[in-house]
Amino acid sequence: MVAHGDNMGMREEILSLKDQVLSRDSINFDPNKFKSVIVAGMGGSGIAGRILSDIYDRVPVIPLSGYNLPAFADSSSLVIVISYSGNTEETISCFDQARERGCPIAAITSGGILSRYSGTVIRIPSGLQPRSAIGYMIMPLLRGFMNLGDRDAAGIRSAIASAFDREVEIKRLAEELANGNRTPVVIGTPEFRGVALRWRTQFNENSKVVAYSTFLPEANHNDTAWMPSFDEDRFKLIAFKSMDPGINLRIDLTQKITGRKFHVIGSDGTLVERLFFLIAYGDLLSYHLGVLRGIDPLDVSVLSRLKEGLAASKR
Amino acid sequence: MVAHGDNMGMREEILSLKDQVLSRDSINFDPNKFKSVIVAGMGGSGIAGRILSDIYDRVPVIPLSGYNLPAFADSSSLVIVISYSGNTEETISCFDQARERGCPIAAITSGGILSRYSGTVIRIPSGLQPRSAIGYMIMPLLRGFMNLGDRDAAGIRSAIASAFDREVEIKRLAEELANGNRTPVVIGTPEFRGVALRWRTQFNENSKVVAYSTFLPEANHNDTAWMPSFDEDRFKLIAFKSMDPGINLRIDLTQKITGRKFHVIGSDGTLVERLFFLIAYGDLLSYHLGVLRGIDPLDVSVLSRLKEGLAASKR
Repeated sequence: MVAHGDNMGMREEILSLKDQVLSRDSINFDPNKFKSVIVAGMGGSGIAGRILSDIYDRVPVIPLSGYNLPAFADSSSLVIVISYSGNTEETISCFDQARERGCPIAAITSGGILSRYSGTVIRIPSGLQPRSAIGYMIMPLLRGFMNLGDRDAAGIRSAIASAFDREVEIKRLAEELANGNRTPVVIGTPEFRGVALRWRTQFNENSKVVAYSTFLPEANHNDTAWMPSFDEDRFKLIAFKSMDPGINLRIDLTQKITGRKFHVIGSDGTLVERLFFLIAYGDLLSYHLGVLRGIDPLDVSVLSRLKEGLAASKR
Repeated sequence: MVAHGDNMGMREEILSLKDQVLSRDSINFDPNKFKSVIVAGMGGSGIAGRILSDIYDRVPVIPLSGYNLPAFADSSSLVIVISYSGNTEETISCFDQARERGCPIAAITSGGILSRYSGTVIRIPSGLQPRSAIGYMIMPLLRGFMNLGDRDAAGIRSAIASAFDREVEIKRLAEELANGNRTPVVIGTPEFRGVALRWRTQFNENSKVVAYSTFLPEANHNDTAWMPSFDEDRFKLIAFKSMDPGINLRIDLTQKITGRKFHVIGSDGTLVERLFFLIAYGDLLSYHLGVLRGIDPLDVSVLSRLKEGLAASKR
């Protein structure tokens, strides 16, 4: 297993997504044999499950961020545990419960406690920030559940490259956010709801800013109410283009009726190509916003201090 | 079926929650007989399903905001459709699909297309804004799924009353938000994650402001990264007390490590009592924030204009 160098900067970590998606690992369980699939993971290791639940719906896929499996989890539930470090307290708790209850388990990790599991472990390269390893964590799910092959992976790689090719445009958007100290409001779609959350959390961690995420059509039942009167100096509305013309119509109508302009981002291509285009675009945007704000996009030592504080409180 | 008067103000609508919870309607399906339960509903009619999915976990409960049932929905899935008006475009689409696929269905509505369904319909009083009818929409789920009875409902009523009794304190918090034009950041817990979303959407609709919601422990994996450096003049952090001492410890530690102060809100009592205390508190808070901002908390005409625009685009 190749590890990434320890001294990669965040920009290089983000750019590595292009090659991560070529990894051939795959979850080798047939999801249709289970009553439900639970994907346990926190933060950057949890987002893969959220994205899977948006786009795979042959069985209920339950993304889980927390300590406890639902009561229904038993041998008829596939439990996928994802922890980049392999030691995430909440995820290990779910893993232990899954073993106690006899759930079939697949683990995705780069090391730690999880890597020593005697069952199915997909071992991914270490040396990245967990949030930067999204390609390694999500591709085994997509290959296994959606039968993606090498040709699909090559298409995804091109989509990511075409997002990174827009770095000048991305920097310009980052400047707009940074100069006005504007809070990003990310408006997702049904198929890219987890991606909107990805943008939010990448803004949180790489740029150290609050960011808001929502999705259409739900946003038309609550968020639209504040749009006519919000302060444009403080917020910037960014919407994703959908595969569904009905959702794109809502984007147009919402702008017309609220009198506000959305910055719309999207690409052509297959569902998974568009999905990775948006992830790559948002990742690089959050990096540049961090740089423009004069902070280190890589540094999340406050999260580490919190983990240490939690561990100390239990001694 | 008693209808509420058409000219009730938003404050009266909110205060009516206390009596809504005494309604004895109940979903008479045994959830354990199904592989999954899907609760379809948008905006104020969707929040009940979200809250149910936080606190009921004997079977997968899937809250759904959108047009389409997941592919797995069939006769083994109970589909609960909730639309206060009975005519919500997205929810009617799910309802139609559920009928086509032979799913068992229960509807909760005050009128419209849904009320004319020949199957199980729980008819609730009309005359309120959908978001104000949350008690009518959620109690049949809690009575049916969690076996709540009249004694529980009386306890819930007292919890709501004790929140409303704090109106002076609530107004003070609304003033803090209004005077500084601060964006509320609502930090929920695993059991009150849907309630945090309720606060967010009530701020959206009643106060016409952007509001941010998140939940612990997940927030310790992303949001905590911005907390040390955010602008206290622009945001106000409000956290819910959990039933779980481990989560309350995280609230304390997060404040200590980020050097930030959270405004912590919560009550004692049973899970459902605490849940309704928080709903009532947030509802009244969002009302007072709207009033202090000089806008009409009741008015969401921009959402109606959007619906008209959508309907017109299809003609």
